[in-house]
Amino acid sequence: MLTAWAVPGLGEIAPGADLPALIAAAAATAGTPLADGDVVVVASKIVSKAEGRLVTAADREDAITAEAVRVVASRPRKDGGLTRIVQTTHGFVMAAAGVDGSNVPAGHVLLLPVDPDGSARSLAEGLRAATGSRVGVVVTDTFGRPWRNGQTDLAIGAAYVDVTDDHRGTPDAQGRTLEVSVTALVDELAAAADLVKGKVRGLPVAVVRGLDAVTDEVGTGVRALVRDAEHDMFRWGSDEAYARGFDAGLAAAAHAEEEAP
Amino acid sequence: MLTAWAVPGLGEIAPGADLPALIAAAAATAGTPLADGDVVVVASKIVSKAEGRLVTAADREDAITAEAVRVVASRPRKDGGLTRIVQTTHGFVMAAAGVDGSNVPAGHVLLLPVDPDGSARSLAEGLRAATGSRVGVVVTDTFGRPWRNGQTDLAIGAAYVDVTDDHRGTPDAQGRTLEVSVTALVDELAAAADLVKGKVRGLPVAVVRGLDAVTDEVGTGVRALVRDAEHDMFRWGSDEAYARGFDAGLAAAAHAEEEAP
Repeated sequence: MLTAWAVPGLGEIAPGADLPALIAAAAATAGTPLADGDVVVVASKIVSKAEGRLVTAADREDAITAEAVRVVASRPRKDGGLTRIVQTTHGFVMAAAGVDGSNVPAGHVLLLPVDPDGSARSLAEGLRAATGSRVGVVVTDTFGRPWRNGQTDLAIGAAYVDVTDDHRGTPDAQGRTLEVSVTALVDELAAAADLVKGKVRGLPVAVVRGLDAVTDEVGTGVRALVRDAEHDMFRWGSDEAYARGFDAGLAAAAHAEEEAP
Repeated sequence: MLTAWAVPGLGEIAPGADLPALIAAAAATAGTPLADGDVVVVASKIVSKAEGRLVTAADREDAITAEAVRVVASRPRKDGGLTRIVQTTHGFVMAAAGVDGSNVPAGHVLLLPVDPDGSARSLAEGLRAATGSRVGVVVTDTFGRPWRNGQTDLAIGAAYVDVTDDHRGTPDAQGRTLEVSVTALVDELAAAADLVKGKVRGLPVAVVRGLDAVTDEVGTGVRALVRDAEHDMFRWGSDEAYARGFDAGLAAAAHAEEEAP
Protein backbone atom coordinates (compact mmCIF):
# COMPACT_ATOMS: atom_id res chain seq x y z
CA MET A 1 0.00 0.00 0.00
CA LEU A 2 1.14 3.47 -0.91
CA THR A 3 0.40 6.40 1.39
CA ALA A 4 1.01 10.09 0.77
CA TRP A 5 0.51 13.18 2.88
CA ALA A 6 1.53 16.81 3.00
CA VAL A 7 3.94 18.07 5.65
CA PRO A 8 2.27 21.00 7.46
CA GLY A 9 3.80 23.95 9.29
CA LEU A 10 6.77 24.83 7.10
CA GLY A 11 5.98 28.53 6.91
CA GLU A 12 7.66 31.02 4.59
CA ILE A 13 11.11 29.96 3.34
CA ALA A 14 13.88 32.60 3.47
CA PRO A 15 17.07 32.69 1.36
CA GLY A 16 19.69 30.48 2.97
CA ALA A 17 17.09 28.50 4.94
CA ASP A 18 18.21 25.03 6.05
CA LEU A 19 15.47 23.16 4.21
CA PRO A 20 16.41 19.62 5.34
CA ALA A 21 16.35 20.70 9.02
CA LEU A 22 13.05 22.55 8.54
CA ILE A 23 11.38 19.62 6.72
CA ALA A 24 12.66 17.01 9.19
CA ALA A 25 11.45 19.09 12.13
CA ALA A 26 8.06 19.84 10.57
CA ALA A 27 7.50 16.15 9.80
CA ALA A 28 8.42 15.15 13.36
CA THR A 29 6.27 17.91 14.88
CA ALA A 30 3.30 16.72 12.83
CA GLY A 31 3.69 13.26 14.37
CA THR A 32 4.83 11.62 11.14
CA PRO A 33 8.66 11.60 11.29
CA LEU A 34 10.50 10.52 8.15
CA ALA A 35 11.31 6.82 7.92
CA ASP A 36 13.43 4.50 5.76
CA GLY A 37 12.07 4.27 2.23
CA ASP A 38 10.16 7.56 2.28
CA VAL A 39 10.27 9.73 -0.82
CA VAL A 40 10.15 13.42 0.10
CA VAL A 41 8.61 15.43 -2.73
CA VAL A 42 9.41 19.13 -2.63
CA ALA A 43 7.96 21.92 -4.79
CA SER A 44 10.76 23.74 -6.62
CA LYS A 45 9.33 27.00 -5.31
CA ILE A 46 10.72 26.58 -1.80
CA VAL A 47 13.98 25.09 -3.09
CA SER A 48 14.42 28.20 -5.25
CA LYS A 49 13.60 30.46 -2.32
CA ALA A 50 16.12 28.73 -0.05
CA GLU A 51 18.73 28.93 -2.80
CA GLY A 52 18.26 32.66 -3.26
CA ARG A 53 16.69 32.43 -6.72
CA LEU A 54 14.22 35.24 -5.92
CA VAL A 55 15.59 38.05 -8.03
CA THR A 56 14.52 41.58 -8.84
CA ALA A 57 13.07 41.88 -12.31
CA ALA A 58 11.43 44.98 -13.69
CA ASP A 59 9.83 42.79 -16.32
CA ARG A 60 8.94 39.09 -16.10
CA GLU A 61 9.25 38.75 -19.87
CA ASP A 62 12.89 39.84 -19.73
CA ALA A 63 13.52 37.27 -16.99
CA ILE A 64 12.00 34.54 -19.18
CA THR A 65 14.22 35.59 -22.09
CA ALA A 66 17.28 35.36 -19.86
CA GLU A 67 16.33 31.87 -18.62
CA ALA A 68 15.57 30.46 -22.07
CA VAL A 69 18.09 28.68 -24.27
CA ARG A 70 15.70 28.91 -27.21
CA VAL A 71 12.05 29.62 -27.92
CA VAL A 72 10.32 26.42 -29.03
CA ALA A 73 6.92 27.95 -29.78
CA SER A 74 5.04 31.14 -29.06
CA ARG A 75 1.53 32.43 -29.42
CA PRO A 76 -0.13 35.79 -28.63
CA ARG A 77 -2.22 35.88 -25.47
CA LYS A 78 -5.56 37.63 -25.08
CA ASP A 79 -3.94 40.15 -22.70
CA GLY A 80 -1.61 41.31 -25.49
CA GLY A 81 1.40 39.37 -24.19
CA LEU A 82 3.11 36.40 -25.74
CA THR A 83 2.96 32.84 -24.37
CA ARG A 84 6.40 31.38 -24.91
CA ILE A 85 7.19 27.68 -24.67
CA VAL A 86 10.96 27.60 -24.21
CA GLN A 87 13.80 25.20 -23.61
CA THR A 88 15.53 26.00 -20.33
CA THR A 89 19.21 25.66 -19.49
CA HIS A 90 18.29 22.30 -17.88
CA GLY A 91 16.77 21.05 -21.15
CA PHE A 92 13.17 21.21 -19.94
CA VAL A 93 10.58 22.44 -22.42
CA MET A 94 8.07 24.51 -20.52
CA ALA A 95 6.00 27.68 -20.55
CA ALA A 96 7.77 30.84 -19.38
CA ALA A 97 10.98 28.94 -18.49
CA GLY A 98 9.48 28.16 -15.10
CA VAL A 99 9.79 31.84 -14.11
CA ASP A 100 7.26 32.33 -11.34
CA GLY A 101 5.63 35.65 -10.61
CA SER A 102 3.02 34.46 -8.09
CA ASN A 103 3.49 34.51 -4.33
CA VAL A 104 6.57 36.73 -4.65
CA PRO A 105 7.08 40.41 -3.74
CA ALA A 106 6.24 43.00 -6.40
CA GLY A 107 9.13 43.64 -8.80
CA HIS A 108 10.55 40.17 -8.19
CA VAL A 109 10.42 36.79 -9.91
CA LEU A 110 11.43 33.35 -8.74
CA LEU A 111 13.71 31.35 -11.05
CA LEU A 112 14.08 27.57 -11.12
CA PRO A 113 17.02 26.08 -9.19
CA VAL A 114 20.24 26.19 -11.22
CA ASP A 115 20.80 22.43 -10.79
CA PRO A 116 17.62 20.71 -9.57
CA ASP A 117 19.26 17.25 -9.41
CA GLY A 118 21.99 18.80 -7.27
CA SER A 119 19.34 20.46 -5.11
CA ALA A 120 17.61 17.10 -4.66
CA ARG A 121 20.92 15.51 -3.69
CA SER A 122 21.66 18.19 -1.08
CA LEU A 123 18.16 17.83 0.31
CA ALA A 124 18.34 14.04 0.49
CA GLU A 125 21.76 14.00 2.11
CA GLY A 126 20.70 16.71 4.54
CA LEU A 127 17.51 14.82 5.41
CA ARG A 128 19.47 11.57 5.87
CA ALA A 129 21.91 13.36 8.18
CA ALA A 130 19.11 15.08 10.12
CA THR A 131 16.89 12.01 10.55
CA GLY A 132 19.10 8.95 10.13
CA SER A 133 16.50 7.66 7.70
CA ARG A 134 17.18 6.34 4.20
CA VAL A 135 15.02 8.77 2.20
CA GLY A 136 14.94 9.86 -1.42
CA VAL A 137 14.00 13.28 -2.77
CA VAL A 138 12.08 14.50 -5.81
CA VAL A 139 11.91 18.23 -6.67
CA THR A 140 8.85 19.15 -8.73
CA ASP A 141 7.43 21.88 -10.89
CA THR A 142 4.13 22.34 -12.72
CA PHE A 143 3.98 21.75 -16.48
CA GLY A 144 1.39 22.20 -19.20
CA ARG A 145 1.18 19.63 -21.99
CA PRO A 146 0.55 19.71 -25.73
CA TRP A 147 -2.90 18.47 -26.82
CA ARG A 148 -4.30 18.35 -23.30
CA ASN A 149 -5.78 20.97 -21.01
CA GLY A 150 -4.69 21.34 -17.42
CA GLN A 151 -1.30 21.10 -15.76
CA THR A 152 0.37 18.29 -13.86
CA ASP A 153 3.45 18.23 -11.66
CA LEU A 154 6.59 16.61 -13.06
CA ALA A 155 9.98 15.93 -11.52
CA ILE A 156 12.74 18.44 -12.30
CA GLY A 157 15.25 16.98 -9.83
CA ALA A 158 15.74 13.63 -8.10
CA ALA A 159 18.28 11.94 -5.85
CA TYR A 160 18.50 8.56 -4.10
CA VAL A 161 15.35 7.37 -5.86
CA ASP A 162 14.75 5.24 -8.96
CA VAL A 163 14.02 7.67 -11.79
CA THR A 164 12.49 5.03 -14.05
CA ASP A 165 10.91 1.62 -13.73
CA ASP A 166 12.33 -0.23 -16.70
CA HIS A 167 10.22 -3.07 -18.10
CA ARG A 168 12.17 -3.44 -21.34
CA GLY A 169 12.94 -7.06 -21.96
CA THR A 170 10.32 -8.18 -19.46
CA PRO A 171 8.19 -10.84 -21.15
CA ASP A 172 4.41 -10.46 -21.05
CA ALA A 173 2.07 -13.29 -19.98
CA GLN A 174 2.46 -14.83 -23.47
CA GLY A 175 6.24 -14.64 -23.26
CA ARG A 176 6.61 -11.75 -25.69
CA THR A 177 8.56 -8.63 -24.88
CA LEU A 178 6.50 -5.68 -23.70
CA GLU A 179 6.34 -2.80 -26.16
CA VAL A 180 5.66 -0.10 -23.59
CA SER A 181 8.68 -0.33 -21.51
CA VAL A 182 9.96 2.49 -19.33
CA THR A 183 7.80 4.17 -16.69
CA ALA A 184 8.90 7.65 -15.65
CA LEU A 185 8.62 6.79 -11.98
CA VAL A 186 9.64 10.18 -10.56
CA ASP A 187 7.05 11.93 -12.73
CA GLU A 188 4.33 9.65 -11.37
CA LEU A 189 5.66 10.33 -7.85
CA ALA A 190 5.48 14.07 -8.54
CA ALA A 191 1.87 13.72 -9.70
CA ALA A 192 0.85 11.58 -6.73
CA ALA A 193 2.42 14.07 -4.32
CA ASP A 194 0.61 16.98 -5.98
CA LEU A 195 -2.70 15.36 -5.03
CA VAL A 196 -1.89 16.01 -1.34
CA LYS A 197 0.30 19.11 -1.61
CA GLY A 198 -1.42 22.29 -2.59
CA LYS A 199 -0.48 25.31 -4.59
CA VAL A 200 -3.03 27.46 -2.83
CA ARG A 201 -2.99 25.64 0.49
CA GLY A 202 0.65 26.53 1.15
CA LEU A 203 1.80 22.91 1.47
CA PRO A 204 4.93 22.57 -0.68
CA VAL A 205 6.23 19.26 0.72
CA ALA A 206 4.71 15.77 0.65
CA VAL A 207 5.90 12.38 1.78
CA VAL A 208 5.18 9.26 -0.30
CA ARG A 209 5.61 6.03 1.65
CA GLY A 210 5.33 2.39 0.64
CA LEU A 211 7.03 2.41 -2.74
CA ASP A 212 10.22 0.37 -3.05
CA ALA A 213 12.11 3.10 -4.93
CA VAL A 214 14.69 4.62 -2.57
CA THR A 215 18.29 3.75 -3.42
CA ASP A 216 21.72 3.73 -1.80
CA GLU A 217 23.27 5.50 -4.79
CA VAL A 218 22.40 9.08 -5.71
CA GLY A 219 21.34 7.85 -9.17
CA THR A 220 21.02 9.48 -12.59
CA GLY A 221 18.69 12.28 -11.58
CA VAL A 222 15.96 13.72 -13.78
CA ARG A 223 18.64 14.65 -16.30
CA ALA A 224 18.21 11.08 -17.59
CA LEU A 225 14.56 11.84 -18.46
CA VAL A 226 15.39 14.87 -20.57
CA ARG A 227 15.25 13.88 -24.22
CA ASP A 228 17.38 16.06 -26.48
CA ALA A 229 14.70 18.61 -27.36
CA GLU A 230 16.66 19.87 -30.36
CA HIS A 231 16.11 16.50 -32.05
CA ASP A 232 12.64 15.69 -30.74
CA MET A 233 9.78 15.07 -33.19
CA PHE A 234 8.24 18.22 -31.65
CA ARG A 235 11.44 20.27 -31.41
CA TRP A 236 9.61 23.30 -32.87
CA GLY A 237 6.04 24.50 -32.61
CA SER A 238 4.03 23.82 -35.78
CA ASP A 239 3.92 27.50 -36.81
CA GLU A 240 7.65 27.91 -36.20
CA ALA A 241 8.54 24.79 -38.21
CA TYR A 242 6.15 25.82 -41.02
CA ALA A 243 7.74 29.28 -41.22
CA ARG A 244 11.23 27.76 -41.44
CA GLY A 245 10.02 25.41 -44.17
CA PHE A 246 8.34 28.28 -46.06
CA ASP A 247 11.56 30.32 -46.06
CA ALA A 248 13.50 27.27 -47.20
CA GLY A 249 10.97 26.67 -49.98
CA LEU A 250 11.28 30.26 -51.21
CA ALA A 251 15.07 30.03 -51.08
CA ALA A 252 15.05 26.73 -52.97
CA ALA A 253 12.86 28.26 -55.70
CA ALA A 254 15.17 31.28 -56.00
CA HIS A 255 18.17 28.97 -56.18
CA ALA A 256 16.50 26.86 -58.93
CA GLU A 257 15.71 30.08 -60.82
CA GLU A 258 19.32 31.20 -60.66
CA GLU A 259 20.53 27.87 -61.97
CA ALA A 260 18.01 27.75 -64.82
CA PRO A 261 19.61 28.30 -68.26
CA MET B 1 -3.82 11.27 3.93
CA LEU B 2 -4.06 9.58 0.56
CA THR B 3 -3.75 5.81 0.26
CA ALA B 4 -3.56 3.71 -2.88
CA TRP B 5 -3.37 -0.01 -3.48
CA ALA B 6 -3.84 -2.53 -6.26
CA VAL B 7 -6.81 -4.90 -6.28
CA PRO B 8 -5.46 -8.46 -6.56
CA GLY B 9 -7.08 -11.57 -7.96
CA LEU B 10 -8.94 -10.28 -10.99
CA GLY B 11 -7.60 -12.88 -13.39
CA GLU B 12 -8.00 -12.81 -17.16
CA ILE B 13 -10.92 -10.72 -18.42
CA ALA B 14 -13.13 -12.25 -21.12
CA PRO B 15 -15.36 -10.41 -23.63
CA GLY B 16 -18.65 -9.57 -21.99
CA ALA B 17 -17.23 -9.89 -18.48
CA ASP B 18 -19.16 -8.03 -15.77
CA LEU B 19 -16.24 -5.84 -14.71
CA PRO B 20 -18.04 -3.97 -11.89
CA ALA B 21 -19.09 -7.25 -10.28
CA LEU B 22 -15.59 -8.72 -10.70
CA ILE B 23 -13.85 -5.65 -9.26
CA ALA B 24 -16.27 -5.30 -6.32
CA ALA B 25 -15.86 -8.99 -5.46
CA ALA B 26 -12.07 -8.93 -5.80
CA ALA B 27 -11.81 -5.86 -3.55
CA ALA B 28 -14.05 -7.46 -0.93
CA THR B 29 -12.20 -10.80 -1.09
CA ALA B 30 -8.89 -8.95 -0.57
CA GLY B 31 -10.30 -7.53 2.67
CA THR B 32 -10.49 -3.96 1.36
CA PRO B 33 -14.07 -3.50 0.13
CA LEU B 34 -14.85 -0.31 -1.76
CA ALA B 35 -16.06 2.61 0.35
CA ASP B 36 -17.62 6.05 -0.15
CA GLY B 37 -15.17 8.45 -1.78
CA ASP B 38 -12.94 5.80 -3.33
CA VAL B 39 -11.65 6.41 -6.84
CA VAL B 40 -11.31 3.14 -8.76
CA VAL B 41 -8.61 3.43 -11.41
CA VAL B 42 -8.86 0.86 -14.19
CA ALA B 43 -6.35 0.15 -16.97
CA SER B 44 -8.04 0.53 -20.36
CA LYS B 45 -6.71 -2.89 -21.28
CA ILE B 46 -9.27 -4.81 -19.23
CA VAL B 47 -12.05 -2.39 -20.17
CA SER B 48 -11.27 -3.05 -23.83
CA LYS B 49 -11.18 -6.80 -23.23
CA ALA B 50 -14.56 -6.77 -21.48
CA GLU B 51 -16.01 -4.63 -24.27
CA GLY B 52 -14.86 -7.04 -26.98
CA ARG B 53 -12.24 -4.72 -28.47
CA LEU B 54 -9.84 -7.62 -29.03
CA VAL B 55 -9.95 -7.96 -32.81
CA THR B 56 -8.17 -10.07 -35.38
CA ALA B 57 -5.57 -8.10 -37.28
CA ALA B 58 -3.11 -9.58 -39.73
CA ASP B 59 -1.06 -6.45 -39.34
CA ARG B 60 -0.84 -4.12 -36.34
CA GLU B 61 0.13 -1.21 -38.61
CA ASP B 62 -3.15 -1.56 -40.53
CA ALA B 63 -5.04 -1.54 -37.26
CA ILE B 64 -3.28 1.68 -36.24
CA THR B 65 -4.19 3.28 -39.58
CA ALA B 66 -7.82 2.33 -39.06
CA GLU B 67 -7.89 3.82 -35.54
CA ALA B 68 -6.19 7.10 -36.50
CA VAL B 69 -8.03 10.24 -37.56
CA ARG B 70 -4.76 11.77 -38.75
CA VAL B 71 -1.03 11.21 -38.44
CA VAL B 72 0.48 14.02 -36.35
CA ALA B 73 4.12 12.94 -36.71
CA SER B 74 6.09 9.90 -37.79
CA ARG B 75 9.66 8.72 -37.68
CA PRO B 76 11.42 5.56 -38.91
CA ARG B 77 12.28 3.02 -36.23
CA LYS B 78 15.48 1.02 -36.01
CA ASP B 79 13.53 -2.17 -36.79
CA GLY B 80 12.50 -0.73 -40.18
CA GLY B 81 8.98 0.17 -39.07
CA LEU B 82 7.50 3.61 -38.61
CA THR B 83 6.64 5.17 -35.24
CA ARG B 84 3.43 7.08 -35.79
CA ILE B 85 2.06 9.65 -33.35
CA VAL B 86 -1.59 9.95 -34.31
CA GLN B 87 -4.77 11.63 -33.26
CA THR B 88 -7.40 9.05 -32.31
CA THR B 89 -11.15 9.26 -32.82
CA HIS B 90 -11.34 10.40 -29.17
CA GLY B 91 -9.00 13.32 -29.86
CA PHE B 92 -6.05 11.85 -27.96
CA VAL B 93 -2.60 12.30 -29.49
CA MET B 94 -0.63 9.16 -28.82
CA ALA B 95 1.75 6.64 -30.31
CA ALA B 96 0.17 3.85 -32.35
CA ALA B 97 -3.40 5.04 -31.59
CA GLY B 98 -3.28 3.05 -28.37
CA VAL B 99 -3.39 -0.20 -30.38
CA ASP B 100 -1.93 -2.82 -28.08
CA GLY B 101 -0.19 -5.93 -29.32
CA SER B 102 1.18 -7.19 -26.00
CA ASN B 103 -0.54 -9.74 -23.79
CA VAL B 104 -2.94 -10.66 -26.60
CA PRO B 105 -3.19 -13.81 -28.73
CA ALA B 106 -1.12 -13.96 -31.92
CA GLY B 107 -2.90 -12.35 -34.89
CA HIS B 108 -4.93 -10.08 -32.60
CA VAL B 109 -4.68 -6.53 -31.33
CA LEU B 110 -6.54 -4.75 -28.57
CA LEU B 111 -8.14 -1.40 -29.45
CA LEU B 112 -9.02 1.39 -27.02
CA PRO B 113 -12.62 1.54 -25.79
CA VAL B 114 -14.90 3.33 -28.27
CA ASP B 115 -16.11 5.78 -25.60
CA PRO B 116 -13.83 5.72 -22.54
CA ASP B 117 -15.91 8.29 -20.62
CA GLY B 118 -18.95 6.11 -21.26
CA SER B 119 -17.01 3.06 -20.12
CA ALA B 120 -16.05 4.89 -16.92
CA ARG B 121 -19.66 5.83 -16.35
CA SER B 122 -20.88 2.25 -16.79
CA LEU B 123 -18.16 1.01 -14.44
CA ALA B 124 -18.94 3.61 -11.79
CA GLU B 125 -22.67 3.03 -11.92
CA GLY B 126 -22.14 -0.72 -11.87
CA LEU B 127 -19.77 -0.45 -8.89
CA ARG B 128 -22.22 1.83 -7.05
CA ALA B 129 -25.02 -0.68 -7.66
CA ALA B 130 -22.85 -3.64 -6.62
CA THR B 131 -21.40 -2.07 -3.47
CA GLY B 132 -23.74 0.70 -2.41
CA SER B 133 -20.68 2.92 -2.16
CA ARG B 134 -20.30 6.36 -3.72
CA VAL B 135 -17.24 5.70 -5.90
CA GLY B 136 -15.74 7.42 -8.94
CA VAL B 137 -13.91 5.77 -11.84
CA VAL B 138 -10.89 6.73 -13.95
CA VAL B 139 -9.92 4.64 -17.00
CA THR B 140 -6.23 4.96 -17.89
CA ASP B 141 -3.76 4.31 -20.65
CA THR B 142 0.00 4.77 -20.99
CA PHE B 143 1.37 7.75 -22.94
CA GLY B 144 4.78 8.93 -24.08
CA ARG B 145 5.54 12.63 -24.01
CA PRO B 146 7.43 15.07 -26.23
CA TRP B 147 10.82 16.20 -24.88
CA ARG B 148 10.91 13.66 -22.06
CA ASN B 149 11.86 10.00 -21.91
CA GLY B 150 9.66 7.43 -20.26
CA GLN B 151 5.92 6.93 -20.20
CA THR B 152 3.29 7.88 -17.64
CA ASP B 153 -0.32 6.85 -17.26
CA LEU B 154 -2.98 9.41 -18.11
CA ALA B 155 -6.76 9.34 -17.84
CA ILE B 156 -8.69 8.48 -21.01
CA GLY B 157 -12.08 8.19 -19.30
CA ALA B 158 -13.61 9.45 -16.06
CA ALA B 159 -16.99 9.46 -14.35
CA TYR B 160 -18.30 10.69 -11.00
CA VAL B 161 -14.95 12.29 -10.19
CA ASP B 162 -13.62 15.85 -10.50
CA VAL B 163 -11.62 15.96 -13.72
CA THR B 164 -9.79 19.18 -12.81
CA ASP B 165 -8.96 21.17 -9.71
CA ASP B 166 -9.51 24.74 -10.82
CA HIS B 167 -7.50 27.43 -9.02
CA ARG B 168 -8.22 30.18 -11.50
CA GLY B 169 -9.24 33.31 -9.69
CA THR B 170 -7.84 32.01 -6.41
CA PRO B 171 -5.69 34.76 -4.90
CA ASP B 172 -2.16 33.88 -3.80
CA ALA B 173 -0.76 34.83 -0.36
CA GLN B 174 -0.14 38.37 -1.67
CA GLY B 175 -3.70 38.63 -2.95
CA ARG B 176 -2.78 38.30 -6.63
CA THR B 177 -4.42 35.80 -8.93
CA LEU B 178 -2.49 32.58 -9.49
CA GLU B 179 -1.07 32.18 -12.97
CA VAL B 180 -0.91 28.39 -12.92
CA SER B 181 -4.47 27.57 -12.49
CA VAL B 182 -6.00 24.26 -13.53
CA THR B 183 -4.68 20.93 -12.27
CA ALA B 184 -5.54 17.90 -14.39
CA LEU B 185 -6.68 15.94 -11.36
CA VAL B 186 -7.62 12.71 -13.16
CA ASP B 187 -4.21 12.59 -14.85
CA GLU B 188 -2.50 12.87 -11.46
CA LEU B 189 -4.84 10.15 -10.15
CA ALA B 190 -3.90 7.94 -13.10
CA ALA B 191 -0.20 8.47 -12.35
CA ALA B 192 -0.60 7.80 -8.63
CA ALA B 193 -2.51 4.59 -9.34
CA ASP B 194 0.16 3.40 -11.78
CA LEU B 195 2.66 3.41 -8.92
CA VAL B 196 0.73 0.54 -7.31
CA LYS B 197 -0.76 -1.16 -10.36
CA GLY B 198 1.63 -2.97 -12.58
CA LYS B 199 1.89 -3.61 -16.28
CA VAL B 200 3.97 -6.72 -15.72
CA ARG B 201 2.51 -7.70 -12.38
CA GLY B 202 -0.95 -8.27 -13.82
CA LEU B 203 -2.66 -5.75 -11.54
CA PRO B 204 -4.87 -3.60 -13.76
CA VAL B 205 -7.04 -2.01 -11.04
CA ALA B 206 -6.12 0.30 -8.17
CA VAL B 207 -8.11 2.10 -5.51
CA VAL B 208 -7.18 5.64 -4.44
CA ARG B 209 -8.71 6.67 -1.13
CA GLY B 210 -8.66 9.90 0.84
CA LEU B 211 -9.05 12.46 -1.91
CA ASP B 212 -12.20 14.58 -1.81
CA ALA B 213 -12.89 14.22 -5.53
CA VAL B 214 -15.88 11.89 -5.97
CA THR B 215 -19.05 13.62 -7.16
CA ASP B 216 -22.79 13.02 -7.31
CA GLU B 217 -22.94 14.04 -10.96
CA VAL B 218 -21.29 12.01 -13.74
CA GLY B 219 -19.29 15.11 -14.73
CA THR B 220 -17.58 16.26 -17.91
CA GLY B 221 -15.34 13.23 -18.39
CA VAL B 222 -11.85 13.32 -19.83
CA ARG B 223 -13.32 14.80 -22.99
CA ALA B 224 -13.00 18.16 -21.21
CA LEU B 225 -9.20 17.70 -21.03
CA VAL B 226 -8.79 17.11 -24.75
CA ARG B 227 -7.55 20.30 -26.34
CA ASP B 228 -8.46 20.63 -30.00
CA ALA B 229 -5.29 19.04 -31.41
CA GLU B 230 -5.89 20.51 -34.86
CA HIS B 231 -5.29 23.99 -33.42
CA ASP B 232 -2.64 23.15 -30.83
CA MET B 233 0.78 24.85 -30.96
CA PHE B 234 2.12 21.32 -31.63
CA ARG B 235 -0.63 20.15 -34.00
CA TRP B 236 2.02 18.76 -36.38
CA GLY B 237 5.41 17.25 -35.82
CA SER B 238 8.27 19.60 -36.69
CA ASP B 239 9.24 17.69 -39.83
CA GLU B 240 5.64 17.52 -41.02
CA ALA B 241 5.04 21.25 -40.45
CA TYR B 242 8.37 22.12 -42.11
CA ALA B 243 7.47 20.04 -45.18
CA ARG B 244 4.11 21.79 -45.48
CA GLY B 245 5.83 25.15 -45.17
CA PHE B 246 8.43 24.18 -47.76
CA ASP B 247 5.75 23.22 -50.29
CA ALA B 248 3.88 26.45 -49.59
CA GLY B 249 7.10 28.43 -50.05
CA LEU B 250 7.76 26.78 -53.42
CA ALA B 251 4.17 27.41 -54.50
CA ALA B 252 4.35 31.06 -53.41
CA ALA B 253 7.53 31.55 -55.43
CA ALA B 254 5.93 29.97 -58.50
CA HIS B 255 2.87 32.18 -58.07
CA ALA B 256 5.05 35.32 -57.76
CA GLU B 257 6.92 34.27 -60.91
CA GLU B 258 3.66 33.90 -62.87
CA GLU B 259 2.49 37.33 -61.77
CA ALA B 260 5.77 39.01 -62.62
CA PRO B 261 5.52 41.32 -65.62
